[in-house]
Amino acid sequence: MALEKTVDFGKVQDIDVLNLSSLEKRAAKVIGKGEFGYIEEGSDDEYTKKHNTAAFNEVHLLPRVLQNVEEPDQSTEFLGNELASPLLAAPIAGNTLAHESGEIGLAKGTKEAGIMMAQSTFASKTIAETAAISDGAPYMFQLYMPKDWGYCKYLLDEARNAQASAIILTADSTLGGYREADIINNYHLKGKIANLDGYNTGKKGVGAGSLFAESMQSLNLDLIEKLGSYSGLPIIVKGIQHPLDADNAIKAGAAAVYVSNHGGRQLDGAPASIEVLPAIARTVDHRVPIIFDSGVRRGTHVLKALALGADLIGVGRPFSYGLALGGWKGVQAVAEHLKMEINIAMQLTGSRTIEDVKKIQISSDLKF
Amino acid sequence: MALEKTVDFGKVQDIDVLNLSSLEKRAAKVIGKGEFGYIEEGSDDEYTKKHNTAAFNEVHLLPRVLQNVEEPDQSTEFLGNELASPLLAAPIAGNTLAHESGEIGLAKGTKEAGIMMAQSTFASKTIAETAAISDGAPYMFQLYMPKDWGYCKYLLDEARNAQASAIILTADSTLGGYREADIINNYHLKGKIANLDGYNTGKKGVGAGSLFAESMQSLNLDLIEKLGSYSGLPIIVKGIQHPLDADNAIKAGAAAVYVSNHGGRQLDGAPASIEVLPAIARTVDHRVPIIFDSGVRRGTHVLKALALGADLIGVGRPFSYGLALGGWKGVQAVAEHLKMEINIAMQLTGSRTIEDVKKIQISSDLKF
Amino acid sequence: MALEKTVDFGKVQDIDVLNLSSLEKRAAKVIGKGEFGYIEEGSDDEYTKKHNTAAFNEVHLLPRVLQNVEEPDQSTEFLGNELASPLLAAPIAGNTLAHESGEIGLAKGTKEAGIMMAQSTFASKTIAETAAISDGAPYMFQLYMPKDWGYCKYLLDEARNAQASAIILTADSTLGGYREADIINNYHLKGKIANLDGYNTGKKGVGAGSLFAESMQSLNLDLIEKLGSYSGLPIIVKGIQHPLDADNAIKAGAAAVYVSNHGGRQLDGAPASIEVLPAIARTVDHRVPIIFDSGVRRGTHVLKALALGADLIGVGRPFSYGLALGGWKGVQAVAEHLKMEINIAMQLTGSRTIEDVKKIQISSDLKF
Amino acid sequence: MALEKTVDFGKVQDIDVLNLSSLEKRAAKVIGKGEFGYIEEGSDDEYTKKHNTAAFNEVHLLPRVLQNVEEPDQSTEFLGNELASPLLAAPIAGNTLAHESGEIGLAKGTKEAGIMMAQSTFASKTIAETAAISDGAPYMFQLYMPKDWGYCKYLLDEARNAQASAIILTADSTLGGYREADIINNYHLKGKIANLDGYNTGKKGVGAGSLFAESMQSLNLDLIEKLGSYSGLPIIVKGIQHPLDADNAIKAGAAAVYVSNHGGRQLDGAPASIEVLPAIARTVDHRVPIIFDSGVRRGTHVLKALALGADLIGVGRPFSYGLALGGWKGVQAVAEHLKMEINIAMQLTGSRTIEDVKKIQISSDLKF
Repeated sequence: MALEKTVDFGKVQDIDVLNLSSLEKRAAKVIGKGEFGYIEEGSDDEYTKKHNTAAFNEVHLLPRVLQNVEEPDQSTEFLGNELASPLLAAPIAGNTLAHESGEIGLAKGTKEAGIMMAQSTFASKTIAETAAISDGAPYMFQLYMPKDWGYCKYLLDEARNAQASAIILTADSTLGGYREADIINNYHLKGKIANLDGYNTGKKGVGAGSLFAESMQSLNLDLIEKLGSYSGLPIIVKGIQHPLDADNAIKAGAAAVYVSNHGGRQLDGAPASIEVLPAIARTVDHRVPIIFDSGVRRGTHVLKALALGADLIGVGRPFSYGLALGGWKGVQAVAEHLKMEINIAMQLTGSRTIEDVKKIQISSDLKF
Repeated sequence: MALEKTVDFGKVQDIDVLNLSSLEKRAAKVIGKGEFGYIEEGSDDEYTKKHNTAAFNEVHLLPRVLQNVEEPDQSTEFLGNELASPLLAAPIAGNTLAHESGEIGLAKGTKEAGIMMAQSTFASKTIAETAAISDGAPYMFQLYMPKDWGYCKYLLDEARNAQASAIILTADSTLGGYREADIINNYHLKGKIANLDGYNTGKKGVGAGSLFAESMQSLNLDLIEKLGSYSGLPIIVKGIQHPLDADNAIKAGAAAVYVSNHGGRQLDGAPASIEVLPAIARTVDHRVPIIFDSGVRRGTHVLKALALGADLIGVGRPFSYGLALGGWKGVQAVAEHLKMEINIAMQLTGSRTIEDVKKIQISSDLKF
Repeated sequence: MALEKTVDFGKVQDIDVLNLSSLEKRAAKVIGKGEFGYIEEGSDDEYTKKHNTAAFNEVHLLPRVLQNVEEPDQSTEFLGNELASPLLAAPIAGNTLAHESGEIGLAKGTKEAGIMMAQSTFASKTIAETAAISDGAPYMFQLYMPKDWGYCKYLLDEARNAQASAIILTADSTLGGYREADIINNYHLKGKIANLDGYNTGKKGVGAGSLFAESMQSLNLDLIEKLGSYSGLPIIVKGIQHPLDADNAIKAGAAAVYVSNHGGRQLDGAPASIEVLPAIARTVDHRVPIIFDSGVRRGTHVLKALALGADLIGVGRPFSYGLALGGWKGVQAVAEHLKMEINIAMQLTGSRTIEDVKKIQISSDLKF
Repeated sequence: MALEKTVDFGKVQDIDVLNLSSLEKRAAKVIGKGEFGYIEEGSDDEYTKKHNTAAFNEVHLLPRVLQNVEEPDQSTEFLGNELASPLLAAPIAGNTLAHESGEIGLAKGTKEAGIMMAQSTFASKTIAETAAISDGAPYMFQLYMPKDWGYCKYLLDEARNAQASAIILTADSTLGGYREADIINNYHLKGKIANLDGYNTGKKGVGAGSLFAESMQSLNLDLIEKLGSYSGLPIIVKGIQHPLDADNAIKAGAAAVYVSNHGGRQLDGAPASIEVLPAIARTVDHRVPIIFDSGVRRGTHVLKALALGADLIGVGRPFSYGLALGGWKGVQAVAEHLKMEINIAMQLTGSRTIEDVKKIQISSDLKF
């Protein structure tokens, strides 16, 4: 950790977290209007974005009593990583929009909290910079498939060097959703794509705004084998919302399925992510683990997703807001708050372990 | 197109379209209060009008990934017309209420966008005036069945001369819905019915206000044969909301079924148009194509209607608002915006073609 | 009608009726606060009152087209009365709270409109006074069963003399619902019970406030036979919300079943009246006609209730508001407005007659 | 009752009760902000707290008529106690937060109203102080299982001396729910735990804030036998929301099952208490009686819970608010108001007795 001492994490401070949702308003005051709009917005009418969180209310956890539970243990394992809690800081582009420390702040905060982090291709810091902080802590790399195979290989090499546990292939964003806040704010994603700097193309400093221009639009199942074969790393497919796509991905070699609608930023009118999880989990049937994100704001949401079949739960925007408010300490505070809520919810559902949580009964069939 | 050069399209300008719904407020500022009320209102409590759009939220598109899609192709064919997109500017009476160019602005805008247009019997411009602009572009004529068979024949002759692809027989408006804005505004539909001018009845300049007085109230299935036989054109029945009526119309010779509740302007308390589409599509079972309108405001709405069985999707008021704001360029801008949203939605649902869109799975059965 | 000339109908004027719901606010300005509260309020949280009207939105009428309908005929017959429309001015206590003419204004207005009226035991005018105006027009008498059989016989005699078509036995109000507006307003129902004046008890001028004190609380099925036998008139049981009660009442001799929850004034937490109608209609199975009220505010509501099994549709508060605003002309205006809405709805559902309306299909089973 | 004369009940006054919900705002003015927040709040987003009451609207009571009911009798029996109504003042910690008289005010008010009361381990008054007022009236003691078995025995001895009808073992609160009002208000539960004073531990005056520190977190089914065996009293398990827990508790010797989600103060995201009642009642199948609480604010709610299988209905916060506003007279006024609403609802559902109420039909299956 000698390295860390020389690293500038920017302005770092302790923050109070009343709850995850309450961070949004506070972060809006410290992030620029255009940047905040870019982070916060969903696509079109934001139906899917809002529905992601609201739909958790349709899933009721049935509490259990007299189960002899004391100090529940929320530690778990994911692809060989020991985690203090089944939480993932979901990959987000350009974290310097929120805070000068960007991904290195995220890496430090999640490492301190003992949870998984994923870094985006479009990160503000290079893989190597982030890995220097992460330093063996649970880490994955999210790939927006480049058009340029040489650049792709460079990214995979860097990810392997960074001890990434897996490559997350982004499959739901072959183009960007229609997000109106950017148009209203006349906002174009600023900042360079750091990961291009190390690659010898002369494209150094290419703006993040051209991100889809640099990415391959037409993706297919063969990529799973191709990426896995080159990198030697497990390949996870992100953005799965249809049981058939989950099945196809597993048959094509995916090491995990990542259920997500990109936090409602892509296809508006898609179901809430939690609504598609049960059908996908039935199809996956424990062949590979399932990552889940989109709309998670409470410890009980984490339990609901686990009870409906997920193994690792991603949270996105709230970590950006925590980062904006307190640097890496803000990130850690968000994780610790969530762990506290998870602990209470485990105790009140009579769950000693995460395996117990996965057996919690959902009450949909208890109506009158 | 020499003709067009001599035509006065009124005030024409480029407009920004953030989304279709946002045009309403802007248009309200440039259209007279009474005229705007007439265009915007639904009947009674506007339950059906509001429900038309809201009900789309109950239909979830299931996104697909890794489908090898790049640059989806939304072109399609309808009754022999090549269309750049499965879109129809649904027939609306008296378009000069919105903009001085009326139907000739609509004709120009839709032609430029490569989509279908339909002209109402109660248009502000004659069929011939509109046809001069349309000039072979996809065009249909909507008939409010006149009491006077001579006048009906005159309209059919004009429509045939205008190269209409079909006659749309309006079946759901044998009288007008109860619309309160007109009463509150003390508004009576102004402007003459242009199509009466060319007909030698001495009724030239009859006000649009007398439109139902001039129309036949008691319609029946025999009209399909009668109109088709005289005109030699395909006859489409508009306003179908019951599977039995769809079946009857097809058996009586209809070339297509037009599912619509008139944008919620007729029977309030009728289901949302999208709610009746699946049952009608099952009954039609591909014997004839299906046109659908009422409540469409988003590209995803277009996909949902296609996925539930429609072939051509009508949009009404937003084209009037586009016309009001920018003349024919406003009409084109509305169409282009919708095409952009359709393109994104096709990409994100893994749809290369409109035929693929029709196979998108709706998620109603994926709930917990 | 010579009599009418000598009758004082109080202040009478033409009123505009935009729709039935809009009358409430206008009437609140001309009726005293306490009196208005008494008329308008529902019991407890007013859940059932509000749900009565809202639940109509869950019933969708399926429009029909090309049915050869012109000028629908909404005339009907009920217990031997020819009615211009299947409408009933539902019985309401103390109509002078709304307008000085009270029940004689109601009688005049409903007679002019050709619809049925029902007079309450707790009317502000005597049966004889009302009958002098009604004069053979469709009329029923609503009985709050008195404790005093002599008084009951007197009321039945008066009703028979008034040519009442039936006696409506109020069964759902053996005590009053808990209505908070009266407590907030410190309001006690004022005015005398006119029908006591003609009965030789020395109770002349007894306040309406003691109305439940004068009424029998413990009612049973034997009353139907007892009342019918004495009066020779058909007995209708009002306030039925359970299929079993409908069956019991018919087996005990009831001439009709009156489905109602008293406009949400009695048991809050009861279903919307329209929700219980289908099950009751299935049980009644055309053995006797069905009257329906509670929540009806639109012509389409009338059609929905008819389509779900009712034969005569009661409207309550809106007639009081019409009476308050225009005297008997206000009552007539409310009826005429509703007839206009019914006419449009019949045309748009392809219904030539009320019998056709009863066959309209409800769309509950057409959802995705 | 000689004792009572010497007791100081603090400020006592008659209060008007419009309805139970309306007491909240009034009480907020006389209770300190932090104290009020502690009493009023639910956990997390308060979804379950709000849903507890809202879900009653999904249960419709079907009124019955002509059932020969007069002056319904709501008296009932519970574990050998004659009650004027099937009501329980549910156990609440630290009642001096609301009013200086605390539990002795509650004991006096409930005794006057003839209903059951339950005292919390964390009461502001000792069991003996409360018993001196209760003096043989229906009374139960709610146990938060102490870590110290000696202290537990002391509490059980005191409860037996107080003639407690049963010990209610709190099973759903092995730690506190996450309640944000306390954090916002920086509020820590004040006041001592009176019941510690009489126990010779040197812990006299331990603050209620340490209440979970003093309680056993890991509870199991064996406690039922252990507590019953030592105390000789019936043991009731409180906080049951899963049919399996009900079954387990009965098999382990529980004398009754207490269905509750702690008024939405524990696991947010749990179902409304009324939603789980039917399934639990089916499982219990009359082997033991069922107590129900959470969300009850109306007489009709009491009837709904009884109709769905409960035997005794707890009400919590409204009694605290009544206590705050009028001391013991406020408590009695709340009970009397509820009895009045129950009386009306029984009459209007044709229920002569509580046994009749349990047979009321719920209308869920009467929808279209």
